[in-house]
Amino acid sequence: MERRSFITRTGLAGALAATAAPAIVHAQTALRWRLASSFPKSLDTIFGAAEVFAKKVGELSGGKFLISVHAAGEIMPAFGVVDAVQNATVEIAHTAPYYFFGKDETFALGCAIPFGLNSRQMTAWMVERKEIKSLADMKGLKMRIGGFGGRVLERIGAVPQNIPGGDIYPALEKGTIDAAEWVGPYDDQKLGFNKVAPNYCYPGWWEGGPQLDFFINTKSYDALTPEYKAVVEAAAAVAHTDMQAKYDYRNPAALKQLVGSGTRLFRFPKEVMEAAFKASQEMYAELSSKNANWKKVYEDYARVRADQNLWFRFAEAAFDDFMQTQKL
Amino acid sequence: MERRSFITRTGLAGALAATAAPAIVHAQTALRWRLASSFPKSLDTIFGAAEVFAKKVGELSGGKFLISVHAAGEIMPAFGVVDAVQNATVEIAHTAPYYFFGKDETFALGCAIPFGLNSRQMTAWMVERKEIKSLADMKGLKMRIGGFGGRVLERIGAVPQNIPGGDIYPALEKGTIDAAEWVGPYDDQKLGFNKVAPNYCYPGWWEGGPQLDFFINTKSYDALTPEYKAVVEAAAAVAHTDMQAKYDYRNPAALKQLVGSGTRLFRFPKEVMEAAFKASQEMYAELSSKNANWKKVYEDYARVRADQNLWFRFAEAAFDDFMQTQKL
Repeated sequence: MERRSFITRTGLAGALAATAAPAIVHAQTALRWRLASSFPKSLDTIFGAAEVFAKKVGELSGGKFLISVHAAGEIMPAFGVVDAVQNATVEIAHTAPYYFFGKDETFALGCAIPFGLNSRQMTAWMVERKEIKSLADMKGLKMRIGGFGGRVLERIGAVPQNIPGGDIYPALEKGTIDAAEWVGPYDDQKLGFNKVAPNYCYPGWWEGGPQLDFFINTKSYDALTPEYKAVVEAAAAVAHTDMQAKYDYRNPAALKQLVGSGTRLFRFPKEVMEAAFKASQEMYAELSSKNANWKKVYEDYARVRADQNLWFRFAEAAFDDFMQTQKL
Repeated sequence: MERRSFITRTGLAGALAATAAPAIVHAQTALRWRLASSFPKSLDTIFGAAEVFAKKVGELSGGKFLISVHAAGEIMPAFGVVDAVQNATVEIAHTAPYYFFGKDETFALGCAIPFGLNSRQMTAWMVERKEIKSLADMKGLKMRIGGFGGRVLERIGAVPQNIPGGDIYPALEKGTIDAAEWVGPYDDQKLGFNKVAPNYCYPGWWEGGPQLDFFINTKSYDALTPEYKAVVEAAAAVAHTDMQAKYDYRNPAALKQLVGSGTRLFRFPKEVMEAAFKASQEMYAELSSKNANWKKVYEDYARVRADQNLWFRFAEAAFDDFMQTQKL
């Protein structure tokens, strides 16, 4: 996204308007896009983020730029949404990029890797990492379906399975899988996992703070006016903050209700955490030696992770630790 | 902000456009606002947040809605910006509401109170706290200049002084004050505090995750079209995320440089933290008994704080603690 050039143009327009203050008539073409989500409609936060995005684009364009939002399986299977954008079957997809690490592991860095960044750190990295913010920068990175944390689980002896959110409950119920991870208590309760899986382990070290992404077809995006490009960018920022806030706000009550209804909380044993951490670091080193895309992006990511953990250890953790031990 | 009604209207327009797809000509009046900031131009993150906001409003409106941003002292003193909005001298102010707790302490809850919410928790509370998101909801809450953490400092024996950001360095240098707090390492280094104050204490318990606010003159805001109201809301969300990310990204390097140049880091002793915590809780209870506005908002805030600390103690702190003790 050529953010700087937008700003320059706005600045020029501003200078003109300041002197002449003309009543500019502003004509934008009415536009209609389809968005394919990887998530089921039942999850109002994660699926809802695409709805928040689409509604915001509509509001910001005075109702002229309209995006219809389609749940996983409606016009596209959960893991087919990015192919659909590439084929121009839909203009935009809302998904978790690590589903597509199979063609290039680098995509996992756009969402979450085991022992990666937490949510606020991820935002800091993405906002400042200008060169990977736009679709153009994604070119050359190939994609396929997968789940990246599974690679580390494999290394510590587990058998990972990649299943869309809406299909996890039946798989647990039928015993096709023994365990599952999803976003957190609010969704887990909604999806009814506690009915078929009474033990609840934390923390989710395979994704400290995952981000979701909107993938937009290159031609569709390039055809947008600078104003509509800004609209898409701002609506995505709103959807990002909004989804994080909704999860944070709803998770505590869900956690209490899960525990109240018999779910047992376990902290992952230190040995498991340490073995998984070691396996992750080894895997990242191996990837760096054979995947140049990964190496380039991971080096920056790892630098930020080291810096952020230093920083969070002081100001942030010292405050949070104190608060968490008080009677509130 | 009547967010729901915007969405309904957009939804209707969407339904019409879907069937007829008319090439609507969209006329918005060119508009020019002035924004008065409480912060000095030298601080690119905190002052910059208002610039990010203004630029985004410009981009989103195709250069028709323009906001000029003025630093503290330029057209208004740092602590005069909210009065200026009330008097309609400027349309909009960018400031920290706790400067104005003197007329009603409730305002501090819109920014930061000692032992309050951390940054992500604050976002969750504000996003979900619909009834205090709009200017209309602020009516009846009176304002004056102040700094809220000072009230607790007073209770534990210190003498608080409220000084705008740009005036802190000379006050430290002259010895008018013995100590100062500002946002964090990045700004502290920029403002040169380390040259006159070598000891650096953490965590900043008087504001776990302060938020800044845009105050908009009621008449100016009411005169906006629904599209421009959405533009203002989205631009504020972008500025919020952007400023947090910039601080998080820049603070680690600044902290390392400060320590490298001789600044000594101290963790506040547990006794100090506990005395300050106790004094805070007593003060909040006293305020609840004599200020109905405070009681109403604080009860909701305190409920969220208890829930959030429960939640952050599990999933978030368990992950962060582990990461902070690894060699990265």
